Amino acid sequence: MTIYPDSLARLVESLKKLPGIGNKTAERLAFHLIKLSDEDAMGLARAIRDVKQNLTHCSICSNFTEHDPCPICSDTQRDKSIVCVVEQPKDLMAFEKAAAFKGVYHCLLGHIAMLEGISPEDLTIEPLLKRAKSGQIKEIIIATNPDLEGEGTAVYLRDVLGDIAQQNKIKLTRIARGVPAGAEIENVSSAILSDALTGRASFEGGR
Amino acid sequence: MTIYPDSLARLVESLKKLPGIGNKTAERLAFHLIKLSDEDAMGLARAIRDVKQNLTHCSICSNFTEHDPCPICSDTQRDKSIVCVVEQPKDLMAFEKAAAFKGVYHCLLGHIAMLEGISPEDLTIEPLLKRAKSGQIKEIIIATNPDLEGEGTAVYLRDVLGDIAQQNKIKLTRIARGVPAGAEIENVSSAILSDALTGRASFEGGR
Repeated sequence: MTIYPDSLARLVESLKKLPGIGNKTAERLAFHLIKLSDEDAMGLARAIRDVKQNLTHCSICSNFTEHDPCPICSDTQRDKSIVCVVEQPKDLMAFEKAAAFKGVYHCLLGHIAMLEGISPEDLTIEPLLKRAKSGQIKEIIIATNPDLEGEGTAVYLRDVLGDIAQQNKIKLTRIARGVPAGAEIENVSSAILSDALTGRASFEGGR
Repeated sequence: MTIYPDSLARLVESLKKLPGIGNKTAERLAFHLIKLSDEDAMGLARAIRDVKQNLTHCSICSNFTEHDPCPICSDTQRDKSIVCVVEQPKDLMAFEKAAAFKGVYHCLLGHIAMLEGISPEDLTIEPLLKRAKSGQIKEIIIATNPDLEGEGTAVYLRDVLGDIAQQNKIKLTRIARGVPAGAEIENVSSAILSDALTGRASFEGGR
């Protein structure tokens, strides 16, 4: 289309490559970017460039980082003997926001999904096995998503980690499934209630 | 927050300055940008920079353009005697997409909205009056939005253009309001139906 000036057309096309952004939204964002102060607009351009140039994966846990190893893996205050296995760096960041975990992480960089062509070799499972064999680890918490692929990946990890865990006296655990904090029981799904009953703990031993 | 690497945190903050993009969406977009190919991500960064550096307003009609005057104002095929007055360049582009107008435009760059502190002086009304006085114009079509501010601006323009139009024999018109093409009458609002009745035209003289 020749309606837009070249640079505006290119911006709209570039924005449309982002998830959930169609033609209308791309146009709206483009017009907003034109109106934005030079500082803010250039700041965004620079931030995109910096993220692509500076971010890499931590060689230990595969988290996004600017310095290898990442701040969490190189933090001497954290318990290196407990490893929480998550699918993606954004899951790791969700746990960090919760500030409920003082161990370290391992990002799989995905989940097993054979139908989508994602097999175990595409994930960082090999490095995880290597970490497990190091003799430094006491517990591995599998924190993949509580959905079909996440559960499948969890089961796969339990199987491949089984022997190594026994030999190295590593406790293998899975994050709890149950009613989400703040929920109203009358509104949660049967699957959630079923999980909550199955996973019930005694008042003494539980939380 | 220290959870994100610096460059990622900066990217999230920059994305949050776009309209309709909150924290969650900004994070989702940021993670997507990390995964995007270098070419696509850098393309977006470059497109933002180019738009800020290359786009300016046409000195005649105030449309966005890379070359002054804009391609529409410098197009010898277009009828310079009919001027369609719109609020924003994006309105102009909507008319261009419809390809139903072969005259030229005038972008007000907004609408009068005293409550928001936008007065006539903030718009390109002065240059419009100058164009009207040039003696080259036969018709001015007011195509501001059919909403409160747009109608208010249309009425204001009618008043300030009145004498000049009479002296220069310029026809002042307003775009038609009525049922939108493709609509089902049972579903359109009373305000629309009322407009459609008020603006009815005879089969002979009408469209």
